[in-house]
Amino acid sequence: MLYESVDQAKKKGAGCPSSSKKANEQEEQEKMIQTTLGRIKHKIFVLSGKGGVGKSSVSANLAASLAKKGFKTGLMDVDLHGPSIAQMMGMTKLLDLSPNNLLLPQSFGENLKVVSIQALMQDKDQAIIWRGPAKTGMIKQFVGSVEWGDLDFLVIDAPPGTGDEPISVVQTIPDAKAVIVTTPQEVALADVRKSISFCRTVKIETLGIVENMGPFKCPHCNEVIELFKSGGGELTAKKEGLKFLGSIPFDMGVVASGDEGIPMMMQENPSNFSRAFDTIVENITQQLL
Amino acid sequence: MLYESVDQAKKKGAGCPSSSKKANEQEEQEKMIQTTLGRIKHKIFVLSGKGGVGKSSVSANLAASLAKKGFKTGLMDVDLHGPSIAQMMGMTKLLDLSPNNLLLPQSFGENLKVVSIQALMQDKDQAIIWRGPAKTGMIKQFVGSVEWGDLDFLVIDAPPGTGDEPISVVQTIPDAKAVIVTTPQEVALADVRKSISFCRTVKIETLGIVENMGPFKCPHCNEVIELFKSGGGELTAKKEGLKFLGSIPFDMGVVASGDEGIPMMMQENPSNFSRAFDTIVENITQQLL
Repeated sequence: MLYESVDQAKKKGAGCPSSSKKANEQEEQEKMIQTTLGRIKHKIFVLSGKGGVGKSSVSANLAASLAKKGFKTGLMDVDLHGPSIAQMMGMTKLLDLSPNNLLLPQSFGENLKVVSIQALMQDKDQAIIWRGPAKTGMIKQFVGSVEWGDLDFLVIDAPPGTGDEPISVVQTIPDAKAVIVTTPQEVALADVRKSISFCRTVKIETLGIVENMGPFKCPHCNEVIELFKSGGGELTAKKEGLKFLGSIPFDMGVVASGDEGIPMMMQENPSNFSRAFDTIVENITQQLL
Repeated sequence: MLYESVDQAKKKGAGCPSSSKKANEQEEQEKMIQTTLGRIKHKIFVLSGKGGVGKSSVSANLAASLAKKGFKTGLMDVDLHGPSIAQMMGMTKLLDLSPNNLLLPQSFGENLKVVSIQALMQDKDQAIIWRGPAKTGMIKQFVGSVEWGDLDFLVIDAPPGTGDEPISVVQTIPDAKAVIVTTPQEVALADVRKSISFCRTVKIETLGIVENMGPFKCPHCNEVIELFKSGGGELTAKKEGLKFLGSIPFDMGVVASGDEGIPMMMQENPSNFSRAFDTIVENITQQLL
């Protein structure tokens, strides 16, 4: 058979027999995961069908916005192949360990804590050439080994697609709710329909669709430029019966702030970008609170 | 152990015992792959560390350019989770089968043939929720079951990252040479260094780096806009001792042509985009011919 059934895929510990752990170790890991997740009220799983739509940037700014509004917020990057959150948040040092050997996330101000799977890597430019079953093990271990404390929100940034990593996140955090990020053009929307199909198949609730890199104004002449067309995200949401959470204009400040390591929403200047983000955060929180 | 060694990863048939086929079936598949690949002179593997840098668009336009120059060219999309090539090439019908049950690629003009793994899917909006070992099997089967005939070039569009699909491509087509696509900003370059590390680890030759979505001119005032900064691709190539193949300006025509299903390089209007592409194609072919 060429692919596993969804039931098989959802079964805990699916994968190669060679990667399965002893029963008691597994039980202990389960307990750690339950303890960690039990102290987190809402889990938001940010996903996209296509890479490069700004999923990590949306995750970082969503977490920063929630923290700004006074919510205790965590941001977790589980993208094994291209973790961007550490770079975007300007995280350069190794994470500390708690007395009981759990990872202590890095704090940004009073309410935001961040951890990236990159923290577990020795050389940050090293390619992680992992096969699926190893990735599942890694993600489970990662979720169970971070000391978040009590959180209102945990924002999870997963790699694009519908492969091992998103499956592993859904297995490990079954009450996570999805926010799907897309750009407006059809090539991206074709992939977003796959993300919607993924969420339905694995039965996780979808909070809605965010359209990123929408029309913006030329910094020289102020005329509107539709880089990746416009309106496709809203149209897809309507067709699929999902909530449209909002459109974020392309902003060169996002590129610069990502490289500098300070997300736009942690800065104080109001902009079309930050206003768009406020709307999205409100559309999300009003469904959860 | 959390990840397999490179040697294990390169071993043919690595994966779950449950997905391994009977020895004679496997032997027959190997033979088909060897027969198919033996008739193709040069295999170019287009990869990127990060998604959304325009890897599929570069693949499609690279293949179209080579065909335009008179080379018999094939374009193969092996991105299981987000295959974009079919959409970009305007492929809507099912592929025909040859008398011996091989997939017949769709022809575009005299020299270009295209096949997408999407051709094997029943519902194109269905998410492909596959785990690693199943993906390896699928890619091997796919490579062996296309009737390309004699080709000068085969351009292979793989999904981003350094996971199961790129590993499977390298296993199946060990003499493929890599073209790495990036955008200019640091967040993308961090991932490109992972691609370079991947190529070195699995020991495939790298033809060089293409920088995509470089500076472009505002369609209203003609001033230069650096959407994702500039120069990062060339800088990284220099640092890593790799050839810089060229920078492609962002072009809204690419977004539109991708959605319309006719790659820019199949159109006849000369533009900054097509000129940039001509340089890249020359920098690639002069290394191979």
